[in-house]
Amino acid sequence: MTVTNGYEQSDREQKLDFINVNDLEKEAEKIIPKGGFGYIRGGSEDEWTLRENTLAFNHAQIIPRALTDMENPSTDTEAFGLHFKTPLMMAPTAAQGLAHAKGETDTARGVAAAGALMAQSTYSSTSIADTAAAANGAPQFFQLYMSKDWDFNHHLLDEAKKAGIKGIILTLDAPVDGFREDDMRNHFQFPIPMANLTEYSEGDGAGKGIGEIYAAAAQKIGPKDIERIAEYTDLPVIAKGIMSPEDALKAIGAGAAGVYVSNHGGRQLNGGPASFDVLPSIAAAVNHQVPIIFDSGVRRGSHVFKALASGADLVAFGRPAIYGLALGGAEGVQGVFEHLNAELKIDMQLAGTKTIADVQHAKLAHFPA
Amino acid sequence: MTVTNGYEQSDREQKLDFINVNDLEKEAEKIIPKGGFGYIRGGSEDEWTLRENTLAFNHAQIIPRALTDMENPSTDTEAFGLHFKTPLMMAPTAAQGLAHAKGETDTARGVAAAGALMAQSTYSSTSIADTAAAANGAPQFFQLYMSKDWDFNHHLLDEAKKAGIKGIILTLDAPVDGFREDDMRNHFQFPIPMANLTEYSEGDGAGKGIGEIYAAAAQKIGPKDIERIAEYTDLPVIAKGIMSPEDALKAIGAGAAGVYVSNHGGRQLNGGPASFDVLPSIAAAVNHQVPIIFDSGVRRGSHVFKALASGADLVAFGRPAIYGLALGGAEGVQGVFEHLNAELKIDMQLAGTKTIADVQHAKLAHFPA
Amino acid sequence: MTVTNGYEQSDREQKLDFINVNDLEKEAEKIIPKGGFGYIRGGSEDEWTLRENTLAFNHAQIIPRALTDMENPSTDTEAFGLHFKTPLMMAPTAAQGLAHAKGETDTARGVAAAGALMAQSTYSSTSIADTAAAANGAPQFFQLYMSKDWDFNHHLLDEAKKAGIKGIILTLDAPVDGFREDDMRNHFQFPIPMANLTEYSEGDGAGKGIGEIYAAAAQKIGPKDIERIAEYTDLPVIAKGIMSPEDALKAIGAGAAGVYVSNHGGRQLNGGPASFDVLPSIAAAVNHQVPIIFDSGVRRGSHVFKALASGADLVAFGRPAIYGLALGGAEGVQGVFEHLNAELKIDMQLAGTKTIADVQHAKLAHFPA
Amino acid sequence: MTVTNGYEQSDREQKLDFINVNDLEKEAEKIIPKGGFGYIRGGSEDEWTLRENTLAFNHAQIIPRALTDMENPSTDTEAFGLHFKTPLMMAPTAAQGLAHAKGETDTARGVAAAGALMAQSTYSSTSIADTAAAANGAPQFFQLYMSKDWDFNHHLLDEAKKAGIKGIILTLDAPVDGFREDDMRNHFQFPIPMANLTEYSEGDGAGKGIGEIYAAAAQKIGPKDIERIAEYTDLPVIAKGIMSPEDALKAIGAGAAGVYVSNHGGRQLNGGPASFDVLPSIAAAVNHQVPIIFDSGVRRGSHVFKALASGADLVAFGRPAIYGLALGGAEGVQGVFEHLNAELKIDMQLAGTKTIADVQHAKLAHFPA
Repeated sequence: MTVTNGYEQSDREQKLDFINVNDLEKEAEKIIPKGGFGYIRGGSEDEWTLRENTLAFNHAQIIPRALTDMENPSTDTEAFGLHFKTPLMMAPTAAQGLAHAKGETDTARGVAAAGALMAQSTYSSTSIADTAAAANGAPQFFQLYMSKDWDFNHHLLDEAKKAGIKGIILTLDAPVDGFREDDMRNHFQFPIPMANLTEYSEGDGAGKGIGEIYAAAAQKIGPKDIERIAEYTDLPVIAKGIMSPEDALKAIGAGAAGVYVSNHGGRQLNGGPASFDVLPSIAAAVNHQVPIIFDSGVRRGSHVFKALASGADLVAFGRPAIYGLALGGAEGVQGVFEHLNAELKIDMQLAGTKTIADVQHAKLAHFPA
Repeated sequence: MTVTNGYEQSDREQKLDFINVNDLEKEAEKIIPKGGFGYIRGGSEDEWTLRENTLAFNHAQIIPRALTDMENPSTDTEAFGLHFKTPLMMAPTAAQGLAHAKGETDTARGVAAAGALMAQSTYSSTSIADTAAAANGAPQFFQLYMSKDWDFNHHLLDEAKKAGIKGIILTLDAPVDGFREDDMRNHFQFPIPMANLTEYSEGDGAGKGIGEIYAAAAQKIGPKDIERIAEYTDLPVIAKGIMSPEDALKAIGAGAAGVYVSNHGGRQLNGGPASFDVLPSIAAAVNHQVPIIFDSGVRRGSHVFKALASGADLVAFGRPAIYGLALGGAEGVQGVFEHLNAELKIDMQLAGTKTIADVQHAKLAHFPA
Repeated sequence: MTVTNGYEQSDREQKLDFINVNDLEKEAEKIIPKGGFGYIRGGSEDEWTLRENTLAFNHAQIIPRALTDMENPSTDTEAFGLHFKTPLMMAPTAAQGLAHAKGETDTARGVAAAGALMAQSTYSSTSIADTAAAANGAPQFFQLYMSKDWDFNHHLLDEAKKAGIKGIILTLDAPVDGFREDDMRNHFQFPIPMANLTEYSEGDGAGKGIGEIYAAAAQKIGPKDIERIAEYTDLPVIAKGIMSPEDALKAIGAGAAGVYVSNHGGRQLNGGPASFDVLPSIAAAVNHQVPIIFDSGVRRGSHVFKALASGADLVAFGRPAIYGLALGGAEGVQGVFEHLNAELKIDMQLAGTKTIADVQHAKLAHFPA
Repeated sequence: MTVTNGYEQSDREQKLDFINVNDLEKEAEKIIPKGGFGYIRGGSEDEWTLRENTLAFNHAQIIPRALTDMENPSTDTEAFGLHFKTPLMMAPTAAQGLAHAKGETDTARGVAAAGALMAQSTYSSTSIADTAAAANGAPQFFQLYMSKDWDFNHHLLDEAKKAGIKGIILTLDAPVDGFREDDMRNHFQFPIPMANLTEYSEGDGAGKGIGEIYAAAAQKIGPKDIERIAEYTDLPVIAKGIMSPEDALKAIGAGAAGVYVSNHGGRQLNGGPASFDVLPSIAAAVNHQVPIIFDSGVRRGSHVFKALASGADLVAFGRPAIYGLALGGAEGVQGVFEHLNAELKIDMQLAGTKTIADVQHAKLAHFPA
């Protein structure tokens, strides 16, 4: 165990033995300090949207297919001109030092080993450069919480470019922080410095509540910001937090190279729909102009399948990977990805879908009618 | 603590520290005597409608919006020619002396401090004049439980006029009292005099069951009563307890200056629909001829948002404020209003709505389809 | 307490003090022996239909109405050419000696005092004549479980005629007994003789399981039986156990003077629909050609209202009255009727319906849409 | 008790006294060793589909019918040119030695005594010949888990032919094993040899996990395999694991003599629809070209009725029979069949359906609409 500013960080590095990723949450709760665990697990208000995110996958069903004459389905896929061994992706998740002393560097190692796409968060515990280096050449995206201070934004984007980042995810659904009651009950303040803030002038984030962190973030974010970042970086910009067809088209109109459907894992606007429920209408509007990333509530291979079949190209998740990180470091993260991918592969075989493209063409059922 | 007729009234005056208004109910239950608490919290029969009032908000969802290029949403709004700092409103709620020794005068102070509209009840523990004076000039409405005795009605309306009341809310959904089982189990009788009754000849209400109180109330209420009161007072008359488009139009036809959609917080007709469920059809019928006030089941900023987006102009609630009153007096009430308004503001930012008018134009989702 | 064949029968005669009829079930369970209680309360198989009978009332909602200019609603009504003080009716319920030593004679007294219609069961613990005499001139119907032995049927019908019975309810949904698991677990046998059987040659029913009782009942029942009974008695014949428009029309075609919509209180076919769910389509088909009686799951005044508004003319129930009988004899039964009628009256006032005919014209809401 | 490889097998042979088949599960759990019970009871992942299989029967309701002028309904039926005393069928279920020392031979005896159709599994604990012999001439089907090794397939089919098997059920929904978490938690390995494997060269199955067993199974199964098996055996081939109209037609197009609608009792693809939910659309597509067998979730006579009324010709189940086997051997199995058939007969009488063909023409209700 590593103690940083009085906060006890896991430093386990081990292969995990587990049955499903839901089990990991209970195990992780035992070793992540209460405040950190609350921050990671919690959603906003009474968590209706958080719960609905996962329950909504039951609104659709995968149709088992027979006589498909296939075997050995492959989860290899391609998106944003990059190849991956799995459509699973690491959602940009802040402050992973809360779960593990190695933080994002271990996550990056685990994700890379699983052949998946890693997204770094602005509020990472380790720096853009360090996290990128840990991936050993595997592609990464960088997620930007846009600051009011464009010098800081430019600094972050410069760092991302330098580190070989392949795409910028611009978070659009967090102009204010969601009303997260666990953090309030725990009087939670970030005990671990945020490396990208430390590097720059504006303080390191440690000892701040999430409200203060957000206070430095830009609230007014518009289409012009997508253009500006795309121009500045010459990297694909993915608009994250899209929950309506209108906004998806607005983002694409402003030059977004990808649409990221997410309600921030139920951590922002409570009382909004499950991300899975809005995905089909967004996919219909996007109509393959750009790739779609999806997250929120994914806990099973069947959830991944349903999201792909509803229009997603990559399916991201955060919490399960963070639990794996706490319990096993890089190997723990890798194990979570490989576990969900193994579940997905079973579903693919049973649904008669040999490739991710086949999954994307599968028709789902919707019972009861 | 103040003891009146053997009943222990809170006299706390303090700022409250709380996470959400649902938590307040549990705290308030500890300090409000059982009979009083049952009267405040309870609904009719097995409380299906009471529960459905809040659950029904899940029938619609707020769509998070991105790229809205906005910040600092404002909850300032206008209705009935009056300005408010919030669309939240204090529902007319009887016998607040059950919760606090200062009763409605403290509520009035708290509501005024929050910049919201206060509605006094006929069955208040403090008099129209005293409650009005406590508001220090902030606008108030007066809610009339119409008596069979028109002299008494005139007396009340005269008092209201004298006190500078800006509108009369005529309650239409309580010609008999709902079948409230908590009151029966507790053999509840009002221990605290009702000031407006004391002033007049018909007894002060203390020591009476709710059935006896209602016995003096008019059962036959028709369109002509709206006309009569409007004429007598020359004040806007708002028809309260409207649950159908037909009755909304009937009220407007009779000269109502506002429609108040409410099922009396699930305290009258059990087995009727949630107020939120009927709101859209009523708003469509009213079609902006007069403002719409909404109450029943509101416990979250997101509920306020959804009611506004479904056609309401002001969104009222009672119980949470009464709990705040019991726990903190005027400051407690103010805190409840400010808390819900803060939740609303977060929702407004995340839904890309800069003004209350924007909220009223927001489209809600309805999943599962 | 009276002990008959080792079975302990209540002989309480008292006015009951209770909040709602659901509470009575728990009280009755304390004084009715286990086997008898299981027989009275139980439904068939896993009781899905029994539970759904009551839950289905939530599928529709009563719309509170305002500005109706009415007071003092009246529950007086008329059906089958008879006047009643209430649309509530005593469903034909077997073996009431299980609940009370006075059995059906006390029920008859209580129902008559409430101004309601009483229906006797073939399998009553007291005889047709005795039960009729107890009503002191108030109208009663007699329910026939048709025997394979037409001499017995004629005997029963003769007795009914002699006793002044005003209508024959022919039960159509019990050609075999439902699969009632409580009775099986309790190895239940009727401890109390069935008076109408005792009088005749075929044994008195005591010491028999329900299966044996049914074995003597006719299984093949067709339209011709309605005709035959109507001709033989010259009394109105009401077809009981109708759950489809087709069968309602078939019954009317065969001369039925009334249609009785019921699934036998969830005691026969489990996995069938709630009676309330099928009522509207049956009422539409019947189209006022004959009166409709409804039962199954009625526990609240609002259930009565909803059934009336869905097409019923009389609304029957059994279990709550039997619980009242056990706890208070005739006064207990009367209290249950008056309680539900009082709940109904509140609903009528709040829904702006002055008469039962008004209730029958009220439109219900159906949320969520 | 018999101990095989350290595993304790029941050897009870007795008539069972039970109220419903759900009760049997709890009793069986007491005598089947944990690993075996987990294998028998469990479904895949979090068992949503397993639970939904049974819950989905509530999506439709049987309409009680009156005035039907019938009695003594008969469950005799015919399918695949064979006569049965009941439409109930024994689903092919592996490794019944887990439940009883006599395994499939006892099941065969019990099923034959009930006049039902027995299906043997490839992975039976007793051999094709022994299980067939136990049936004493009653018809049996043989279910083939197609091996990658066609010599083995031919050997099995030869054995089936030799044993007088009347039809081949080709399982199509198990090219990989479902993700069964109970088996993982229990580190379950088959303790009992699989007789059909023992006879052949590929090992006897004992000491293997289910994953290893499946590894020998063919993954690529296509229409040509149906043709090949039909040609080789000259027996009707029934395609098992059909969950869509498309695949039903594909199977028929390839020469399938029957369609077996099943999601493998919720043991394969979790997150797929309940079998009952997809049955009507498949039946519509099949349109009586070939018989339809249905299984998944059947626990009540009413479930059997609803499946028949939705298009099934035979209705199979596995777990309840296996519980009966563990608790009572052949007589236990027979008792389970006769119990469900008795429940079905009650439903048939109450629904006015005299024959299985009548049941198949009955219209179901679907509330709430």
